[in-house]
Amino acid sequence: MRNITLENGFNCPLPINNYDTIQLAHGSGGRLTSELIDEMFVKTFGNEVLNKMEDQASLKLNGNEIVFTTDSFVVDPIFFPGGNIGELAINGTVNDLCMNGATPLYLSVAFILEEGLKISDLFSIVLSMKKAADEAGVKIVTGDTKVVNKGQCDKIYINTSGIGVRNSEVDISASNLKVGDKIIVSGTIADHGMSIMTSREGLSFQNDIMSDTVSLNDLVKSMIETTKNIHAMRDPTRSGVAATLNEFAKQSDVGININAEKIPIKPNVKGACEILGIDPLFVANEGKLIAVVAAEHAENLLQIMRAHRCGKDSEIIGEVVNEHRGVVVKKTILGVEQIVDLPLGEQLPRIC
Amino acid sequence: MRNITLENGFNCPLPINNYDTIQLAHGSGGRLTSELIDEMFVKTFGNEVLNKMEDQASLKLNGNEIVFTTDSFVVDPIFFPGGNIGELAINGTVNDLCMNGATPLYLSVAFILEEGLKISDLFSIVLSMKKAADEAGVKIVTGDTKVVNKGQCDKIYINTSGIGVRNSEVDISASNLKVGDKIIVSGTIADHGMSIMTSREGLSFQNDIMSDTVSLNDLVKSMIETTKNIHAMRDPTRSGVAATLNEFAKQSDVGININAEKIPIKPNVKGACEILGIDPLFVANEGKLIAVVAAEHAENLLQIMRAHRCGKDSEIIGEVVNEHRGVVVKKTILGVEQIVDLPLGEQLPRIC
Repeated sequence: MRNITLENGFNCPLPINNYDTIQLAHGSGGRLTSELIDEMFVKTFGNEVLNKMEDQASLKLNGNEIVFTTDSFVVDPIFFPGGNIGELAINGTVNDLCMNGATPLYLSVAFILEEGLKISDLFSIVLSMKKAADEAGVKIVTGDTKVVNKGQCDKIYINTSGIGVRNSEVDISASNLKVGDKIIVSGTIADHGMSIMTSREGLSFQNDIMSDTVSLNDLVKSMIETTKNIHAMRDPTRSGVAATLNEFAKQSDVGININAEKIPIKPNVKGACEILGIDPLFVANEGKLIAVVAAEHAENLLQIMRAHRCGKDSEIIGEVVNEHRGVVVKKTILGVEQIVDLPLGEQLPRIC
Repeated sequence: MRNITLENGFNCPLPINNYDTIQLAHGSGGRLTSELIDEMFVKTFGNEVLNKMEDQASLKLNGNEIVFTTDSFVVDPIFFPGGNIGELAINGTVNDLCMNGATPLYLSVAFILEEGLKISDLFSIVLSMKKAADEAGVKIVTGDTKVVNKGQCDKIYINTSGIGVRNSEVDISASNLKVGDKIIVSGTIADHGMSIMTSREGLSFQNDIMSDTVSLNDLVKSMIETTKNIHAMRDPTRSGVAATLNEFAKQSDVGININAEKIPIKPNVKGACEILGIDPLFVANEGKLIAVVAAEHAENLLQIMRAHRCGKDSEIIGEVVNEHRGVVVKKTILGVEQIVDLPLGEQLPRIC
């Protein structure tokens, strides 16, 4: 481990694992991303809100509680089976906003456009953003447009930031898991990531695998109306279900066990993962959530989720335990136990 | 003028001036930017907040009024005389938030990093963001990090979005100019843009010209404490004072006259503009504001501005008139009148 010292005498806090430069893995959602965020960004910018490391900041403004989040989208390709970068940008930020039970209301949209981008492609993207915003019931209220020279961006990058109103009846946080809680996933996993991967690789089954991109705020609303005992909730995007469960286990200092056979996955997605040698637990989702709920409310919540168009394949996939704190363990059908660790990087950059 | 029709039958609303693809000028803050924003983004996303076309959205949340804004920064070079992309990103968003009198409180930061960016450069940028945020009295509360392959970004792009609390005692809007109002600029113009241009061109006087990047919220606070009769306020960034005054004239349907000899400009900046053949009115500023104020309060406000560290070179540069509505006219020292139109594009992309 080395430290970098700047000319002004500041020591770079990043235990950069011998990297002097940014690696693709720093953006993968894996261990290098965590290191960069924890050791450089949070240590430098740190304050009581940021330090909580939720997907959305909860803020008090004149007595009101609001939530605030930001996400930049750099997905490649910009059009993929099941969606495009525009609706992904709307749905992704809506989902970050609602994962603590808040109601998403307003979004900003900031475009970075590459010189030479087809205006018809931009317009297609803009139209699907409008459609996604309408479906989620949010308004786009402010924006920004930058254009960079050809070769300084890849067609289009979109930042969406968002504001919502917090629901004071619930207390949902990655730090709130309790031993005995059940872990529910709202449907089949790995659809988005495998749609991107197979369409990028040009594999023949690419058209069969569709991204799951969708806004989950209406599903969350139904869930909260059912029970106020949801302890944690997050959408497992970069580095997938594995990353989210690891964050939960570490932030709440509990163990998590999951049953491999209970994890919902479409046969074609499973097949593609096997061909490409990828564990679907590490693959990004863009229309799924993981909820951690008190055991006595789990079955009821599961039925409500299954009755919703965005949760029909929901399953209870595991539980929170008192053993192996901070660690996620998967039990296979043969009874074998495997540690599900955070990967160093992801299989592929620019998944969202 | 042609229209583009998409496969789904939608007609592209952009009168694209015979461009099928995005041009650098679409991001310059000039006429092509206005066209893209007005005809595509606002027409598609339109709602009562967005349609106002202010630099910040004013939103009601449970009875509270908040402001919300977003800006992506793609400046080249990332380090320039007087600043770097990080402090620019903080100051720019703070300035957008406070230009209607609001108090900026919270920022989000989203990084797009190019593979190969030096970690020491990133850390320098992060440290100056922290310093700029502290100086402006705002907190960075949420963030995002993406990494793209080498050649798909130019080192680093930063989006900052921000939230503030609106001041209900003032009503500041680009639509509120009244005939007879005085126009004040808070200091020398064109410093930021000429710092970027000369450092990019490698001109020998580059070290003499420093960017003016700074947060103006404290200056705005002093101004509002002095008078509630500020009608409009904006920071003249892309396409400079010319773009801001044109926006004011059009949105308020009034004429604007400015006196060329009253416009403050540093001698070295003026010299560089002359050598490069650039009109400083069209050059970006990152630490200046233009305020439009009722005539009877102008002199008092000017003195307050000059007493503030961020406004010591403030000048009354013109007034709002009943003639030539929607048009900005500059009178030179020889009595010649020139129309100051919005440029089609700017001299140079990636100025902020």
